[in-house]
Formats: sequence, C-alpha cells, structure tokens
Amino acid sequence: MKVCLIGAGRLATNLGKALVRGGHTITQVYSRTKESAGKLATLVGGEFVDNIGEIDNRADIYIFAIKDDALRELVPQVGRNIKEKVFCHTAGSMPLDIFQETVCHYGVFYPLQTFSKTREMDFSNIPCFLETNDQTAYSMLHALAKTISNRIYDLSSEERKYLHLAAVFACNFVNHCYSLSGEVLAAHGLPFDVMLPLIEETARKAGEMSPLEAQTGPAVRYDENVIKAQTDLLNHEPYLQEVYRLLSSGIYQYALQHSRQ
Amino acid sequence: MKVCLIGAGRLATNLGKALVRGGHTITQVYSRTKESAGKLATLVGGEFVDNIGEIDNRADIYIFAIKDDALRELVPQVGRNIKEKVFCHTAGSMPLDIFQETVCHYGVFYPLQTFSKTREMDFSNIPCFLETNDQTAYSMLHALAKTISNRIYDLSSEERKYLHLAAVFACNFVNHCYSLSGEVLAAHGLPFDVMLPLIEETARKAGEMSPLEAQTGPAVRYDENVIKAQTDLLNHEPYLQEVYRLLSSGIYQYALQHSRQ
Repeated sequence: MKVCLIGAGRLATNLGKALVRGGHTITQVYSRTKESAGKLATLVGGEFVDNIGEIDNRADIYIFAIKDDALRELVPQVGRNIKEKVFCHTAGSMPLDIFQETVCHYGVFYPLQTFSKTREMDFSNIPCFLETNDQTAYSMLHALAKTISNRIYDLSSEERKYLHLAAVFACNFVNHCYSLSGEVLAAHGLPFDVMLPLIEETARKAGEMSPLEAQTGPAVRYDENVIKAQTDLLNHEPYLQEVYRLLSSGIYQYALQHSRQ
Repeated sequence: MKVCLIGAGRLATNLGKALVRGGHTITQVYSRTKESAGKLATLVGGEFVDNIGEIDNRADIYIFAIKDDALRELVPQVGRNIKEKVFCHTAGSMPLDIFQETVCHYGVFYPLQTFSKTREMDFSNIPCFLETNDQTAYSMLHALAKTISNRIYDLSSEERKYLHLAAVFACNFVNHCYSLSGEVLAAHGLPFDVMLPLIEETARKAGEMSPLEAQTGPAVRYDENVIKAQTDLLNHEPYLQEVYRLLSSGIYQYALQHSRQ
C-alpha cells in the first residue's frame, strides 16, 4: 500500500521503518520542520514536506502520528481535499470521532509501546489496537497492521483510554521510579548500572506471576524499622520522601487486601 | 567451603542453590519451622533444624538470610558458642556492627536482586556487595562470593543503606506500578499480558539511556488535556489518582530541570 506519514517523531519513525520492511511505500512525510521531515524521508523514502497544503492524494492511507493538539488542527486541513481515502491516528487518548466531520473512512491504529528514535523496534511483537468507522477502513487498516504486527486487537475509544492510562502506570511511572532510583545512587557516588539486573528481573517476573505475588521488599512485609529508616534517609528530599510514603503505604494496603481474599 | 544457612526464605533458597552449584557444602539449614528448613535441605543438602540451639560448629561460614528483627535476636544465640568462625548477613539496611559484640570475624554479603522461590536465578550476573570487619572475614567471604558471582563490590554500611533505598525505587515501587496498571486493565476487562512488551522495552531502555532521556508519555511533554482526562478517569480511585498526580508532576518537574541543564 501507499502510505502518507503525517509526523516525524519517535512513533512515526519506528512505524515508517516497519511499514517499509512490511513492503509498503511511503509517498510523503510531513513535519513542521523540513529538517525532521527530511531526516525521516531519508530513512523510509518518499517526499518530505513542511507545508501541510502540499500533502497530495497519491496515498491509500494517511497516518497521523503527531501530538493530540496538532491532530485536531491538521486533520481538517489534510482531509478536506482527500475525503475518500483512509485516515487514521495513533494516539492512545484521542477518540475515533475526531475524523467524523472531515472524511469518510477512518480509524485508529494504536501500537502499545514506548518508542525511541535511536532504538530499532521489532514491531511484530507489539500489540496493536484497531478501531474503525466502517468496513473499508477496517479492511485497509487490518491488512496494513497484519504486515507489521502479529498481535492485533479490536478496541473501542472508551477502552483505549483506559489502556493508555494503564500504560502510563506500567511505563512512564516505572521509568520515573528508575529516575528516582538513579538520583539516590548518584547522590552517593554509586553507578546506576548496578541496578540493571534487578530492573530486568523485576520486569521478567511481571510476565510469570501477578505483581502482587511478585512483590518483595520492606513495604510488603511491613518492616517498620526499615520503612522508618528509609523515610528518614529522604528527610532532605521532600518529593522523593512523599513518593516513598505514598507507594510504600499502597504496597502494604494492596498486600493486606490480597491476603484477605 | 562448609556453609551453615540460617533462614530458608527466598534469598536463602536462591543463595543455597548457587552455593551448591559453586561447589560448597551446606552443613545445616535452620528455619523457624521444620517444614521450611526441610524443604530447603532437600534442595541443597545438609541437616535441617528448627531449634536454633542445634546449630553446630562444623561450618566455616554462617550465613544469616532472615528478617531484620530475627537477625538481632538470633545472632547472639548462634554466635556465643561459635565465636571463631566467619559470620555474615545478607540484609540491605542492617549495619555490619550487629555482629560486633558476639563474634570475631564477620561481614555482610548483600546480593542486589529480587528473589522468588519459584524462579531459579543465575547468580553470576547479580551484583554482590561485601563489607567485613577484618582480613579473615574478607578473605573467606570474597572467596565464597567469587565462586557464585562475577560482580563483587566493596561497600560500607552507610552506602549500602542508600543502595537498598535505590533498589526499593527501582524494584518494589516499579512492581507496584505494574500492580496499579493491572488494576486499571482488569477493571475494564483488558488482559495484563498486552502490557508485557511495553514493560520489557521500558526496562531495556534503562540499560541504554538515562531514564530522563528515555521518558515518554503525557507528563513529560506536559500534555495538559491528556493529564486532565486521565486524572478524571481515576475520580473513583482516590489512591490511584493521588499516585497519578504525584508522579506526573514529578516527571514534568524533572524534565524541566533536565532541559535547563
């Protein structure tokens, strides 16, 4: 298929590469800056444009991988001249119906992953969540999705909101805990890489047992001495101390509820 | 070497197996219950005892892998009759000097990992942190540690406290975020395993870039609409909402500080 990519950020970059590997052709890459659009077009082919008016009608599918605010602004500008093609966006928290007033066939293609520009992702294992307004959009997007991922699910806009929220907990908040851990280490001259085997194992356990069963450490066994001592170590770090208190109390409460069940 | 294991929990189980694989002999396994002691002795050899008075002087090294409170209680009971051997504990937040009044040669052997009874750990990659009171203890514990791990570091009691605290952030709090993510999913009929590729990738990124560089999601790009909408989704979950607010504000603040540097 011929695909037009609107956006040249982390997701657009990874998706574009996966589409090319899947045998598709990129017709155009749009970004607000010529530099970003050009960089991605060099990797995946196609023209690069920084003027949204230059997006033409050669593609079969128009994929919007841009920030939510930009999405609301650009969809009507692209869609008004190319109403009959298939449109989709990739945002976790944006509904399907943002396309409703502009085009006929549209959908959402939401890949559940955290993307970096520098790390090449194997898309085949990434769960991809589809939602479409009609059969035309479904057939096209499903066919496209199948060429890059083995894990395709149907999901409504309402459910996708909660999936996205769950992903914030499992990825962004987890990564923030890594940051805070690194801060404690750095303040005492300890290298972050001693933490990596523990980080890997914690992630691996999530695939083999429930997080409640997997939990270890002072909070889950309600080791008051250690909890008190560790809280005191953070006396000059009010934010870390607040996180420590809140999450430790949660771990203990969840363990209590779990043991009662 | 001949090793006596005091404790039969997750750490004692994993350490005992690694010691046997490393060519050492377990003389005795102690636990408060005969059942636990027996179970571990079946796996690693040695007698099993549930009476602390039955621990004899055949071993070269006595390893205490038990809760902090029990440690303070049992060290004098074991040590008073076996003063000249090498003693060590495995606790992140307990100081070296808990042995001081009881025995002559002692140390701490702290493996930085989260252990499960059901998952066999390869100890060779686990960072192990040593502290000892004299050359006798250092030689013995270092020689023992070298047979099971390739990553041995010297670390004082003071530094170990912060290492343990950092591990609580990178492991226990991370795992708690997985729990909360699973709770959001379960409340909407979504399976936890769709989250696993994201969890794995988030952990892998920690080994390749700093957590501040790795951060993605609504909070780091200060996407107010999504943050507001996701906060509202948690209106009936006050604990999750508080965690969401606190960690999102932290992610944003850290990104701001980072961009200023």
